[in-house]
Amino acid sequence: MSRPVVGIIMGSQSDLPIMKEAAEFLDELKIPFELTIVSAHRTPQRMVEYSVQARKRGLKVIIAGAGGAAHLPGMIASMTSLPIIGVPIKSSNSIDGWDSVLSILQMPAGVPVATVALNGAKNAGILAAQILGSSNKVIARKLDKYKLGLKRKVEQSDRNIARKGWKMAV
Amino acid sequence: MSRPVVGIIMGSQSDLPIMKEAAEFLDELKIPFELTIVSAHRTPQRMVEYSVQARKRGLKVIIAGAGGAAHLPGMIASMTSLPIIGVPIKSSNSIDGWDSVLSILQMPAGVPVATVALNGAKNAGILAAQILGSSNKVIARKLDKYKLGLKRKVEQSDRNIARKGWKMAV
Amino acid sequence: MSRPVVGIIMGSQSDLPIMKEAAEFLDELKIPFELTIVSAHRTPQRMVEYSVQARKRGLKVIIAGAGGAAHLPGMIASMTSLPIIGVPIKSSNSIDGWDSVLSILQMPAGVPVATVALNGAKNAGILAAQILGSSNKVIARKLDKYKLGLKRKVEQSDRNIARKGWKMAV
Amino acid sequence: MSRPVVGIIMGSQSDLPIMKEAAEFLDELKIPFELTIVSAHRTPQRMVEYSVQARKRGLKVIIAGAGGAAHLPGMIASMTSLPIIGVPIKSSNSIDGWDSVLSILQMPAGVPVATVALNGAKNAGILAAQILGSSNKVIARKLDKYKLGLKRKVEQSDRNIARKGWKMAV
Amino acid sequence: MSRPVVGIIMGSQSDLPIMKEAAEFLDELKIPFELTIVSAHRTPQRMVEYSVQARKRGLKVIIAGAGGAAHLPGMIASMTSLPIIGVPIKSSNSIDGWDSVLSILQMPAGVPVATVALNGAKNAGILAAQILGSSNKVIARKLDKYKLGLKRKVEQSDRNIARKGWKMAV
Amino acid sequence: MSRPVVGIIMGSQSDLPIMKEAAEFLDELKIPFELTIVSAHRTPQRMVEYSVQARKRGLKVIIAGAGGAAHLPGMIASMTSLPIIGVPIKSSNSIDGWDSVLSILQMPAGVPVATVALNGAKNAGILAAQILGSSNKVIARKLDKYKLGLKRKVEQSDRNIARKGWKMAV
Amino acid sequence: MSRPVVGIIMGSQSDLPIMKEAAEFLDELKIPFELTIVSAHRTPQRMVEYSVQARKRGLKVIIAGAGGAAHLPGMIASMTSLPIIGVPIKSSNSIDGWDSVLSILQMPAGVPVATVALNGAKNAGILAAQILGSSNKVIARKLDKYKLGLKRKVEQSDRNIARKGWKMAV
Amino acid sequence: MSRPVVGIIMGSQSDLPIMKEAAEFLDELKIPFELTIVSAHRTPQRMVEYSVQARKRGLKVIIAGAGGAAHLPGMIASMTSLPIIGVPIKSSNSIDGWDSVLSILQMPAGVPVATVALNGAKNAGILAAQILGSSNKVIARKLDKYKLGLKRKVEQSDRNIARKGWKMAV
Repeated sequence: MSRPVVGIIMGSQSDLPIMKEAAEFLDELKIPFELTIVSAHRTPQRMVEYSVQARKRGLKVIIAGAGGAAHLPGMIASMTSLPIIGVPIKSSNSIDGWDSVLSILQMPAGVPVATVALNGAKNAGILAAQILGSSNKVIARKLDKYKLGLKRKVEQSDRNIARKGWKMAV
Repeated sequence: MSRPVVGIIMGSQSDLPIMKEAAEFLDELKIPFELTIVSAHRTPQRMVEYSVQARKRGLKVIIAGAGGAAHLPGMIASMTSLPIIGVPIKSSNSIDGWDSVLSILQMPAGVPVATVALNGAKNAGILAAQILGSSNKVIARKLDKYKLGLKRKVEQSDRNIARKGWKMAV
Repeated sequence: MSRPVVGIIMGSQSDLPIMKEAAEFLDELKIPFELTIVSAHRTPQRMVEYSVQARKRGLKVIIAGAGGAAHLPGMIASMTSLPIIGVPIKSSNSIDGWDSVLSILQMPAGVPVATVALNGAKNAGILAAQILGSSNKVIARKLDKYKLGLKRKVEQSDRNIARKGWKMAV
Repeated sequence: MSRPVVGIIMGSQSDLPIMKEAAEFLDELKIPFELTIVSAHRTPQRMVEYSVQARKRGLKVIIAGAGGAAHLPGMIASMTSLPIIGVPIKSSNSIDGWDSVLSILQMPAGVPVATVALNGAKNAGILAAQILGSSNKVIARKLDKYKLGLKRKVEQSDRNIARKGWKMAV
Repeated sequence: MSRPVVGIIMGSQSDLPIMKEAAEFLDELKIPFELTIVSAHRTPQRMVEYSVQARKRGLKVIIAGAGGAAHLPGMIASMTSLPIIGVPIKSSNSIDGWDSVLSILQMPAGVPVATVALNGAKNAGILAAQILGSSNKVIARKLDKYKLGLKRKVEQSDRNIARKGWKMAV
Repeated sequence: MSRPVVGIIMGSQSDLPIMKEAAEFLDELKIPFELTIVSAHRTPQRMVEYSVQARKRGLKVIIAGAGGAAHLPGMIASMTSLPIIGVPIKSSNSIDGWDSVLSILQMPAGVPVATVALNGAKNAGILAAQILGSSNKVIARKLDKYKLGLKRKVEQSDRNIARKGWKMAV
Repeated sequence: MSRPVVGIIMGSQSDLPIMKEAAEFLDELKIPFELTIVSAHRTPQRMVEYSVQARKRGLKVIIAGAGGAAHLPGMIASMTSLPIIGVPIKSSNSIDGWDSVLSILQMPAGVPVATVALNGAKNAGILAAQILGSSNKVIARKLDKYKLGLKRKVEQSDRNIARKGWKMAV
Repeated sequence: MSRPVVGIIMGSQSDLPIMKEAAEFLDELKIPFELTIVSAHRTPQRMVEYSVQARKRGLKVIIAGAGGAAHLPGMIASMTSLPIIGVPIKSSNSIDGWDSVLSILQMPAGVPVATVALNGAKNAGILAAQILGSSNKVIARKLDKYKLGLKRKVEQSDRNIARKGWKMAV
């Protein structure tokens, strides 16, 4: 299992500080992925090729991040029947992130994009793993273990507060 | 393949007119599913059981619809590592749907919900099929065929306008 | 001057009741135009061809209308250097039109879309004429005459109120 | 009166700088309380136990703080008939706090959450005291005294301005 | 227990169709209440008297409903230390209810209002009962029974769908 | 006192059903006013003349109503130092009235517009009277009497509810 | 003319850095004013007295600034028929200022508040002067002179750019 | 071709850091332009003259930037039939830019403004060039070349990531 099964794409290198969280999660779970720059507005032909060939090339899920009038996730979704995860990014001239959220979420009937929270690239990585884990027991077990870790951290910080007292734990 | 692989849940029977579109799409693609009422706020224990047993019972994807302060999709996601698709519903006392959208979309890091458009239950059905189709060629082919149908309808309405003239096609 | 110089496109025939107002204005000014259905999400290849060939086919301006996560105007703009006018449409499941407005208006640096008001197809027609009239005196004169007509109507309704009295003019 | 009668819970230790204001107010009024980390999304079982046992353990009011898609207050409210006070927290990736506010405030009929202002943990502490003071004269008197203190501070700053002159009081 | 312990107030008789749901719930639980018209903007003196005398007159909770620039709940809260429940009402010229919600919810530190959902008068009634039930076992038991009823209704509608099939249950 | 002292203007006859409420209030108080159609966008020259001559013609206050990108109140304010009252109108293609409100309210430093509520033409009429009444005792007395009437109506509807019982008063 | 004719009030000394701009403008025009702290929520009785005695004490206009759930301007307006100017203040826990704006602007029919832009205290000062200047020629002349000054500054910065060139004028 | 064909105007010198991006783009393409300060609210007469004489003076497109209640683009559009491009500017007291966007975008039927993204002055420059390039082959070729440059930059950053690896490219 070394050929990439998840494709992570974004419109600009400036989105990488957000989008790398998806990569890091997949890395942690040892799920092979690729990471590329594809811009809906600046390299539309490249975007067409990427989406048309995605399934043939072995990809099973695509994570696409974009900000402002964010067309990348939806356009990729229009050209492949793979599940597409959209990450709205709060870019510099965004109107508080509303533009990114709405232009990814509000896709018309027929062409869904699985949208996650604003800047929620980590959740996009987890969701991609869940999609793969839906029919792959090894990944499913890793996800259950990750979930256990989330729980442990809460319990730990609770013990921390109990020990120190809330006044000192701030 | 007759045991349900998709679970469609919603908080109230009044959500059915929206949520049935997910069921209809899965029906059309002959993907076995179940449809149940589970309320986060009125039957929390039932919700816990539903999510905890979902994977064991053979479900591979869960579609959860909810309106207002919509907690069902996120809470289900907190108790299973299956992919959860959230459908924000514009219910009667909703503030224009913003409450449903934000309380499903804005999940914290660690617990994603694949959110679709407001009232976008049809897209939830398609997305569930895409998730299954990610590792199932039969479903993938059906989805490609569906995509072709979307294209045909556009071409047909375009011919329609060309024939009638735009003034008569309104 | 009979080959179309303005292209009016929209994602669905259901947008025609709004978009026809652009057509009617161009008709009134005897500016030759074409009207077609092109969907970013359902006919992406057709959209690519339309935009790539637009200038060669003699078009000078393109008016594109779309609702929800409205990608048509921006995607057309990514593939031609003709001026693109975007009409945000308040479609049925739109969140009060905000999704259409933001996903057309908030284009990234490098790829502008000339956005008009929500459902403002008439203004899109006028703006297209203004763009042509920028270097065409005949059209410029027609636009000045149209402007005069707007003024006349205000004066007339003012005389109307003066004559009837405001109580009767409601 | 030393067994906790108010429970203060929050999803993460990072909420403590906001939520401690509730604790401080109860401390000031010598109302016994407990403070714990309970996460709806990371420790759902713990949340179930907390809410189910709350009344038996002697709690009379619960204050729950959460950010983003904030499900903690509403889920606690679904499993106990104690009054629940919800504090929307403006967390780092929140969309200006709207997500927290709406996912706590807009609870469906049958399951109320007493919502206070964004980051309004101090008011949550006061409201908890008011609820207890509704049938407890000692607490009621303390609250009236606190109200008097608010008035005094306004009068003092007014005298301050009168003495210094407004130009110097900025 | 026949002297009113809950006061239900609203700015105008036109708010009664919404606010009566609070009254109906209290009626159902046999909790004595009074219902009066008090307007912050049209009868400010009356509002002052109402709030100042509320505790003396035996009230333990006040439910105040208002729309638009809704000042009634917050002003009452400024003049009594009883718990005040605010019901934002979506009145005719309201901007989608946002004005009512924000002008009730966003109270400054020191003066809380327990805000419920837009038009959520029923939840205001339930919350008032929860506040009383916090130190009254009879009311607490009634609330638990009510909660059980909510659960039963969900189970019933689920059986209903199971019996009829989802296609017929819409 | 028969020369108009208040000018009521609006961009279109279609605004009259809203704006007439300002006229009716002034009529009731016997304050002489004029009512005219002046459009910022369709009759800019007329607007310039109206504002430049307003003070000379004896006007003391101007009420200007407009919808959408509402420029009339602010432009009038830029050309006279009379107090200008702006009425945001929720016109047909308005985005829920937000456009009208913000384009009237958010004037830059140096050029204020006294903005009233969305569709609040009656309040514009009252505010105009208050401005005149600021230095005119006859008008001030009429306003105090009007205020008394508001109070009376509340008391009457309260008696109405007391008599009928709240169940019958809905 | 040395008795104050304008009252400037605000809920807290922390509002002074914004509200002093109103005072500075009145100072500049030599219009006598007073500046006081009056809080709707912390000193309601003081607020009642202030508004009831305002006209008798010689005030002709009141400027009231407030943030969050801003009730001061509207409550003052409910108890006097003087013109009230409301200044929405973007305080620290405000939701981007929307709460202040809506809870001042959206007053019910019968009780207007002349609302200016968010943090627009300078415009409140100018508007107060315009209201006085409506029937006072000396003030009117000063306002016309101020208007001329605004124009001069624009012309000056334009000459500045012309001289330096736009590249150097940034 | 040295007489200005594009006019860039803005209400204040403080808008220049945003608006200069339009100038820089036109400079780069060697399209002659002029840049001036014209304020709708502070120099209305100057604005009237500017718009009335624009076409006679040889201008073919006007770019107008403004913030807050932004009236400049729409008012210019009301007095000339040249195409007007509006740039909403997020000024200091703007409510997150919404005021600027809506007061430029939502123009009434009859008077369009070609609106670009918030602070999108660069896109305004490009759009102006596209309008000229609509009937000017030299400019059209330059625009196509610019588009190629956008593509190149994406490809370059993609190679950059491929070479360094995504972990190092952040």
